[in-house]
Amino acid sequence: MKAAVWYGKKDIRVMDVPEPPAPPAGWVKVKVHWCGICGSDLHEYIAGPIFIPVETPHALTGDTAPLILGHEFSGEVVEVGAGVANVKAGDRVAPDACQVCWECARCKEHRYSLCEKLAFTGLMTDGAFAEYVNVPAYTIYKIPDHLPYDTAALVEPLAVGFHAVRQSKLQLGDTAVVVGAGTIGLGTVMAAKAAGASRVYCVEVAKARKELALQVGADAVFDPNELDVVAKIKELTNGGADVVIECVGSDRSTPVAVELARSAGRVVIAGIYEKATSLNFNALSFTEREIVGCLAYYGEFAACIDLISDGRIDVKPMITGRISIDDIVEKGFEELVNRKEQNIKILVKPF
Amino acid sequence: MKAAVWYGKKDIRVMDVPEPPAPPAGWVKVKVHWCGICGSDLHEYIAGPIFIPVETPHALTGDTAPLILGHEFSGEVVEVGAGVANVKAGDRVAPDACQVCWECARCKEHRYSLCEKLAFTGLMTDGAFAEYVNVPAYTIYKIPDHLPYDTAALVEPLAVGFHAVRQSKLQLGDTAVVVGAGTIGLGTVMAAKAAGASRVYCVEVAKARKELALQVGADAVFDPNELDVVAKIKELTNGGADVVIECVGSDRSTPVAVELARSAGRVVIAGIYEKATSLNFNALSFTEREIVGCLAYYGEFAACIDLISDGRIDVKPMITGRISIDDIVEKGFEELVNRKEQNIKILVKPF
Ligand SMILES: [Zn+2]
Ligand SMILES: [Zn+2]
Ligand SMILES: [Zn+2]
Ligand SMILES: [Zn+2]
Repeated sequence: MKAAVWYGKKDIRVMDVPEPPAPPAGWVKVKVHWCGICGSDLHEYIAGPIFIPVETPHALTGDTAPLILGHEFSGEVVEVGAGVANVKAGDRVAPDACQVCWECARCKEHRYSLCEKLAFTGLMTDGAFAEYVNVPAYTIYKIPDHLPYDTAALVEPLAVGFHAVRQSKLQLGDTAVVVGAGTIGLGTVMAAKAAGASRVYCVEVAKARKELALQVGADAVFDPNELDVVAKIKELTNGGADVVIECVGSDRSTPVAVELARSAGRVVIAGIYEKATSLNFNALSFTEREIVGCLAYYGEFAACIDLISDGRIDVKPMITGRISIDDIVEKGFEELVNRKEQNIKILVKPF
Repeated sequence: MKAAVWYGKKDIRVMDVPEPPAPPAGWVKVKVHWCGICGSDLHEYIAGPIFIPVETPHALTGDTAPLILGHEFSGEVVEVGAGVANVKAGDRVAPDACQVCWECARCKEHRYSLCEKLAFTGLMTDGAFAEYVNVPAYTIYKIPDHLPYDTAALVEPLAVGFHAVRQSKLQLGDTAVVVGAGTIGLGTVMAAKAAGASRVYCVEVAKARKELALQVGADAVFDPNELDVVAKIKELTNGGADVVIECVGSDRSTPVAVELARSAGRVVIAGIYEKATSLNFNALSFTEREIVGCLAYYGEFAACIDLISDGRIDVKPMITGRISIDDIVEKGFEELVNRKEQNIKILVKPF
């Protein structure tokens, strides 16, 4: 079968690889219909290895590069291993990407994305930029018949936004600010609206993304190059938002995100950082603000599928491209590198 | 009456000032028995003005320097203003230092130390390094007859430790690390033990403070100059403590405090910072750790008085000196500057 395999930085090869074998006990084999390119895939392409195990075999899977990338996918189950009861051949599915140990402290609390041996599908073990992929049966979530496969490939990134909103403890009527309107930021805007936020403001600089933020439900978008966003949002929220969700991962936007929160407000850190942030922690001790990290998701898939399926959340505006796996480097990774702001989610068809 | 008045950095004058007038409606007049010197008083002495209003009159009180310092005090009510029903002349008391508006959003939630017009007694309005002080009746907490006034002067700083533990959400059986064994750190150690922490570890470098930490109940004290405290505490806590309380306020200790917490653990920032801290926020997003600020207290006084009164918490080891107000500069502030590590709480007798 064809697959997109990460060999190294700037070295992703579309090549023929053996089809995965019949799934072992507790596993299922999925025929992939669509798989989105994630920001973390892009990071591995530009600056990897970041999460990909190269020298030391992964603690859970034993795998090292070369690895097949891809974790934002939908597909059809074609075969199940021994003992699998939650899913059967023919089921349409959107799998969770967390392969975990179920034995560590966080796994036992069901906060499984914090598993000390977390193996993310398509980053720490073979993923879904391929015609077939084997995954554990516990990662499988079924999708309804009327939900198209392309939309279902957005369940995974939307779950990140869902989880960010849950980490924020946003309550009905709260004001929210989402910093950054990339895939996670847009998903977070939609999730915050669905959670009953009274106002969701977005902070973004790129024109195309500003428009998308409004399209998916942001009440207003503010550009730090055009106005003093802290002053503006403090004015609109009577001194600061109840919750702020940082989806950029930048040392420049993070202190601003903290300032945007009211006293005793909550700031969620959903970004991945390339360098340290300089913050005067009096911004916490003088205000009792909370800052909390946010990694992937645990258990949000079913709710995401529900809200997408019944139309409360429309993820379609996030799909900005559809390509064949043959074109994944040029029309996928390179397109994202060169025209980052115009693109949100490029979906890849692996067959 | 005699009072210690802050005129400027390194300029605290013991002088005769007029006794406060009869208390207005809703206020009470307290004869001060003991008042402790706080780290924040010391900061105002060394590097002030920090919290003291100098040019702009304070939003709640209208006061500016010169101001009488002192907020950690006990005393006897000698007169009450009109409409005061919760306290009467002759009552022995330990007053809360937060004078607030009761109208802003945080006041309405009873998180009154976050009042947008907070006026801390003895920093933003006249305080208790004086024979008498007038304070609002709502700040008054009565102490039992058997509780000595010297001990009662420790209620205020202990309340800060109480509040820090409550901000940490420490639960019965949790492991805790307290970074720094000054007044707040020691109070936090005692509060964490009283809260049922299974183990309370302390991080401290000064010999005298290490001994005090053990004396007030720390299970062990680790010195970063002697060993790798992160490795040691991770080993003792199976990967990190459930809660960490940072009581130093240093850009060097804060990233260590974050590292000491387990994944999804909670870090409380109880220190006041002189400069920015450099932290890679992946330490949050990869682990879902929470960091939360902590300012003074709200409502913890009654419980502190209870636990001190019935002997569950013994604050006496924290008293390292007793002086007369005449000696407050030389034997108080200068002593604390020159022999910071040997001193925890120096109590001042204002008459
Ligand atoms: Zn992703
Ligand atoms: Zn695990
Ligand atoms: Zn104090
Ligand atoms: Zn207030």
